[in-house]
Amino acid sequence: MKPKNDTFLRALLRQPTEYTPIWIMRQAGRYLPEYNQTRARAGDFLSLCKSPDLATEVTLQPLARFGLDAAILFSDILTIPDAMGLGLYFAAGEGPKFERPLRDEWEIRDLAAPDPADKLGYVLDAVSQIRKALDNSVPLIGFSGSPFTLACYMVEGGGSDDFRHIKTMMYARPDLLHRILEVNAEAVTSYLNAQIEAGAQAVQIFDSWGGALSHAAYHEFSLPYLERIISGLTREKDGQRIPVIVFTKGGGLWLESMADIGADALGLDWTVDIGDARRRVGDKVALQGNLDPAVLFSNPETVRAEAAKVLQSYGKGTGHVFNLGHGVSQFTSPENVAALVDAVHELSRENHG
Amino acid sequence: MKPKNDTFLRALLRQPTEYTPIWIMRQAGRYLPEYNQTRARAGDFLSLCKSPDLATEVTLQPLARFGLDAAILFSDILTIPDAMGLGLYFAAGEGPKFERPLRDEWEIRDLAAPDPADKLGYVLDAVSQIRKALDNSVPLIGFSGSPFTLACYMVEGGGSDDFRHIKTMMYARPDLLHRILEVNAEAVTSYLNAQIEAGAQAVQIFDSWGGALSHAAYHEFSLPYLERIISGLTREKDGQRIPVIVFTKGGGLWLESMADIGADALGLDWTVDIGDARRRVGDKVALQGNLDPAVLFSNPETVRAEAAKVLQSYGKGTGHVFNLGHGVSQFTSPENVAALVDAVHELSRENHG
Repeated sequence: MKPKNDTFLRALLRQPTEYTPIWIMRQAGRYLPEYNQTRARAGDFLSLCKSPDLATEVTLQPLARFGLDAAILFSDILTIPDAMGLGLYFAAGEGPKFERPLRDEWEIRDLAAPDPADKLGYVLDAVSQIRKALDNSVPLIGFSGSPFTLACYMVEGGGSDDFRHIKTMMYARPDLLHRILEVNAEAVTSYLNAQIEAGAQAVQIFDSWGGALSHAAYHEFSLPYLERIISGLTREKDGQRIPVIVFTKGGGLWLESMADIGADALGLDWTVDIGDARRRVGDKVALQGNLDPAVLFSNPETVRAEAAKVLQSYGKGTGHVFNLGHGVSQFTSPENVAALVDAVHELSRENHG
Repeated sequence: MKPKNDTFLRALLRQPTEYTPIWIMRQAGRYLPEYNQTRARAGDFLSLCKSPDLATEVTLQPLARFGLDAAILFSDILTIPDAMGLGLYFAAGEGPKFERPLRDEWEIRDLAAPDPADKLGYVLDAVSQIRKALDNSVPLIGFSGSPFTLACYMVEGGGSDDFRHIKTMMYARPDLLHRILEVNAEAVTSYLNAQIEAGAQAVQIFDSWGGALSHAAYHEFSLPYLERIISGLTREKDGQRIPVIVFTKGGGLWLESMADIGADALGLDWTVDIGDARRRVGDKVALQGNLDPAVLFSNPETVRAEAAKVLQSYGKGTGHVFNLGHGVSQFTSPENVAALVDAVHELSRENHG
């Protein structure tokens, strides 16, 4: 069934809308006091992700405050490697880590895509519960990390600023990295299809680290696996098209090739001028983005002025979903988020209809 | 007087050369055991920078090992804010920090460009000594951080992954940031001119953090100050042109505008295909780069193959200075650096003459 507000879905499919829809990456996050309360009740971040009740609660929190046009499943990008047995944990103040990083050839040969129903049921349960709780008000976005981004964490064993281990593998043993990426692509495909089956009405693939690659390496180690996933996704359910958004952070140089892999929309970080991006991709895809999240450190007047610039740069017509160029920072004032959502809704009307 | 090997200078000016010259960002660094010995003798990194004798010693070390086509002054990018009185220090394993970050309006109003002869004499002494020690074998490159990159460290008080303080200032009080950038531009101009006076035969401006900006913010807060510096630099000395290289890491989207600010060459990080970059900038500037430093984690055969790809992508003719797309990592084996230098010299001959 179509959500009452399906502006987001129509914009992704480049169908006419009355205004530019907006959602915000990491909209259920630490900048919201109510999120921090739920998280404290959960005990730790992983328990929050693994409880469908609490995941539903935090998914809905930003929608109660702001007039957002979509909800996004609250979960972690590393659920897949966790389900593969790598042992995800969060060290205090340090970000995600794996107990058993993937380095040895035999471990890589043994790697297998997890069955989502078996190992990731808590995510699918959250999707169903959130859909029920949303009661068809706005669409629900499912998501996954990209094969390359998952591989970064799996091989490095956590975040990295130089990607030393995965890039050593990439240049010295590309066969091993391709093997990991094949398994990851299979895992992401069945994970996203299971989310769609459970009720996700659009999906986004976060290629958070693709921008760390060279031009040639991106086209060998990230993009083809994104394309493979997209070709394996359920694209229609109950008569509704399920749009796919691909977001490679730092991928602004490669938009032309990204527009050719079958995605409905591309996410943009804030380094690209969205008007230039639109001219480069033409009618092939919708665009999502791309305000610098740091604008939200300023004040409501500046937020409104900067939002207006993004809308103006995109220009008239549909095909734009407003978002930040990256997740909202924990140091953001909710007041500025409210100003952003209102500004986009008000100011964008003249671009439409 | 012209150096015996002036291939680097000719390539920057797009004059014919017999092969593609190469130098490597951070070539005097922690991947070299002899560098670590000198640094241990100095006691700490800042003492190494501030001793002209030791700075000369480490500047020459990579030239003794590898057939590099240029030397680069060993120094730190934060000497200017240190000379402004911000109190540069290095906490163990943490990178550079300032004792007194620049946040208050009155401090910003009071900020003044230091007189290089007075406050940065140790750098100028190092330049003279290195020139003497090089004995006109290869050219010496002087350098500085860009106004925006210096401002990042000055306002954040150290490195940052979200640039929260400087971007808050940028969006909420752009007038204050412009004031800092004006002072920095004046400081960088006189600092680079003093290095040229002391013997630097080319200069590079490192805009290491310009790529963290939005398209619009880069064109307001970084690029115009780079242009202002370039227009104030000594461009000829003793009948020799002094080429200027501008390197904005993450600036691949903005090459067209960067090519218009009067620089002789643009540095490229590894995300750009250098052949595409050449088509985009045309005959306006030479290009420097752009191998992924992570290639040097592999093995001599792979290094040779990847270097060949960069040379092939650039194609025939002059105007290319080979380099990495970022500084060489401390985890690099010197054997792979040797393989890179030899590969570039051997394989590039067919692009020339």
